[in-house]
Amino acid sequence: MWDTLWLDARLATMAPGTDRPYGAIEGGALAIEDGRIAWLGKRDELQGAPEKLAKQVHWVEGRWITPGLIDCHTHLAHGGNRASEFERRLLGDSDARIQADGGGISATVDATRAARDNELYEASSARLAPLLAEGVTTLEIKSGYGLCAESEMKQLRVARQLGRDYPLDVVTSFLGAHTVPPEFEDDCAAYIRAVTEQMLPAIVEAGLADAVDVFCGRGGFDAELCEWVLAAARGHGLPVKLHADQLSDSGGAELAARYGALSADHLEYANADGVAALARSGTVATLLPGAFYCLRGTRKPPIAAFREAGVPMAIATDSNPGSAPVTSILLMLSMGCTLFDLTPEEALAGVTREAARALGLLESRGTLEIGKRADLCVWEIDRPAELAYRVGFNPIAYVVKQGRARG
Amino acid sequence: MWDTLWLDARLATMAPGTDRPYGAIEGGALAIEDGRIAWLGKRDELQGAPEKLAKQVHWVEGRWITPGLIDCHTHLAHGGNRASEFERRLLGDSDARIQADGGGISATVDATRAARDNELYEASSARLAPLLAEGVTTLEIKSGYGLCAESEMKQLRVARQLGRDYPLDVVTSFLGAHTVPPEFEDDCAAYIRAVTEQMLPAIVEAGLADAVDVFCGRGGFDAELCEWVLAAARGHGLPVKLHADQLSDSGGAELAARYGALSADHLEYANADGVAALARSGTVATLLPGAFYCLRGTRKPPIAAFREAGVPMAIATDSNPGSAPVTSILLMLSMGCTLFDLTPEEALAGVTREAARALGLLESRGTLEIGKRADLCVWEIDRPAELAYRVGFNPIAYVVKQGRARG
Ligand SMILES: [Zn+2]
Ligand SMILES: [Zn+2]
Repeated sequence: MWDTLWLDARLATMAPGTDRPYGAIEGGALAIEDGRIAWLGKRDELQGAPEKLAKQVHWVEGRWITPGLIDCHTHLAHGGNRASEFERRLLGDSDARIQADGGGISATVDATRAARDNELYEASSARLAPLLAEGVTTLEIKSGYGLCAESEMKQLRVARQLGRDYPLDVVTSFLGAHTVPPEFEDDCAAYIRAVTEQMLPAIVEAGLADAVDVFCGRGGFDAELCEWVLAAARGHGLPVKLHADQLSDSGGAELAARYGALSADHLEYANADGVAALARSGTVATLLPGAFYCLRGTRKPPIAAFREAGVPMAIATDSNPGSAPVTSILLMLSMGCTLFDLTPEEALAGVTREAARALGLLESRGTLEIGKRADLCVWEIDRPAELAYRVGFNPIAYVVKQGRARG
Repeated sequence: MWDTLWLDARLATMAPGTDRPYGAIEGGALAIEDGRIAWLGKRDELQGAPEKLAKQVHWVEGRWITPGLIDCHTHLAHGGNRASEFERRLLGDSDARIQADGGGISATVDATRAARDNELYEASSARLAPLLAEGVTTLEIKSGYGLCAESEMKQLRVARQLGRDYPLDVVTSFLGAHTVPPEFEDDCAAYIRAVTEQMLPAIVEAGLADAVDVFCGRGGFDAELCEWVLAAARGHGLPVKLHADQLSDSGGAELAARYGALSADHLEYANADGVAALARSGTVATLLPGAFYCLRGTRKPPIAAFREAGVPMAIATDSNPGSAPVTSILLMLSMGCTLFDLTPEEALAGVTREAARALGLLESRGTLEIGKRADLCVWEIDRPAELAYRVGFNPIAYVVKQGRARG
């Protein structure tokens, strides 16, 4: 006997291999057992009275059910915020001047290093809450504002703790190679040696990282130094991902492909060879339209080329204090369509199926299919496109995480 | 004795005439009596023990208090939504084809006409909820999707009812001259005669309109026909406002100034003469960055010219099903800064002081000053710029409407 049975639902399964938009099943039913999807299909195909099939029966009255949403790229666990430099810039101050005054990423590094675990936890919780409220059931959180073993580990510890305390799964990425810290100002290579030889082993030892990320390009590291980190991650058996080609073509897409990265992220300046390489390696292109918006981007990622080449596309908030103080995944659906020309179906796939793929978790989640985790969102909408159409509106009815209804 | 006294607050009074950003008072106190602000200033200037001064004392622990937010331009009370045409457009369908299939504004007119009062009320309530949750205490709602006396009055009745049922003030605008309805397809002048001679008198008689709005320019009416409506409104003693110069320079700003309009709205294509005219007439430029975003605008309103000429600038959601399915006023602060180069202080003024001015209600609200209504927002922020800096985050702690804490 199933634990729960959901009837009278419209299912946006997002499963591949159907020719129906959104893999939709109208007049659908979905059964959950032991936190997993035990059955789904047309209501008509169910044999027997619902009450005899499951301990609990829920009638969702024609509401849409999607997979739980996945935010596959965030820097959520950081100290401080950069509202004051946001304001200074709008009042006419230059970036150079703001940086000379200790602003920019170094302000966040200082604040993150200075924060105690519980302060970092509280600040991060506040940012996690709106994502939770929008139906996020799996959340990636990166380090990268500590830039020393102690503070990077603090960020990752807080991320793990959030995953234990809140009804969502947190996946962590070690992003020691985010930018060069002040202690190594004139020696990037020495810092990258510290990342690979000291920080990474300690973090692996502590079981704090599910993947390793690097920032390839302006503001981060060149492809050669990034490769040291990718090779070291491989040595530890960890999957990799890259911030690539955001502000210039730095060969990041090709490098991602060469290392079989889970994802290459940003990609505004990816070139044709990079697109082809991503397609061959099956690497996900993770699009971050919130950063594009905040930075007033003018060059979009090569969406049409990704589509044509069959590069899977995810979307994420990039939630970070500098270029994307964003805590709405639904708004990223809107921006994915409006700023990047995605279709609403691609946008929804980008925060479900493709986001799961970008985290290496497609086996367990990201679509509604038998055997997958019962992470579901139930929505007060007439059609899935509404999730991308509305701006600043949250039509969630309720969320189910591993079979359990969430508060 | 005061009803309530708020202590340990940081007040962003937004009052003019100080040289402090946001008219800020740090270490402030604010007293409320009979739903109005009875006193405010530095805590130190208070004479006597707080408990002896007020029946209730609230310690807000350094939180920021701003005037209640005002959304001065919405089309909230409409039937249906246009998610399906949003999707069709992204899948490659042309606007012409979508319109030929009954899409565009006529889809909303059909849905609004078909909706019963209670259906319109329910749909509008759902859109009002997120604005309420963000601290909106005064909300403008326009008609303009009925386009006949019966349905325009239905929209305005629903708007009035929302104002009675929810803890915010609703201000209505009759926008019969939004677009020409199918019944008058080839005779705009005949429709405008119906607006001025039949619809407007009936609506005035029923007390349903606080102001009259017209849509001047492409998709609406030329300046001459708009002028008929403005003159008729003046005859009934109603203030006017205009949708002006959104997609082309249609002389809307000058026309607004000539009629002493409360506001001219959109204004992407306003020319230098229009800017000067608005400055002379004291008409508010209401900026609608959500529509600019959704329509992928490329031409910004002449913000620097407004600033230089001293044209007051408001910001609003424009909440409508076609060009701005937006229900977040906080996001409009972000877009006002990021898309239109406003400063965070201008953006906050745009949804408080200047929005009040745009509704002709500056006497009673829009700033924290003695004698004004006690409509307040209390925020979990360190500085007011955070309201514009964050994207998809609502740091509201609580809202006070006419002296009463709201749920
Ligand atoms: Zn990032
Ligand atoms: Zn409008």
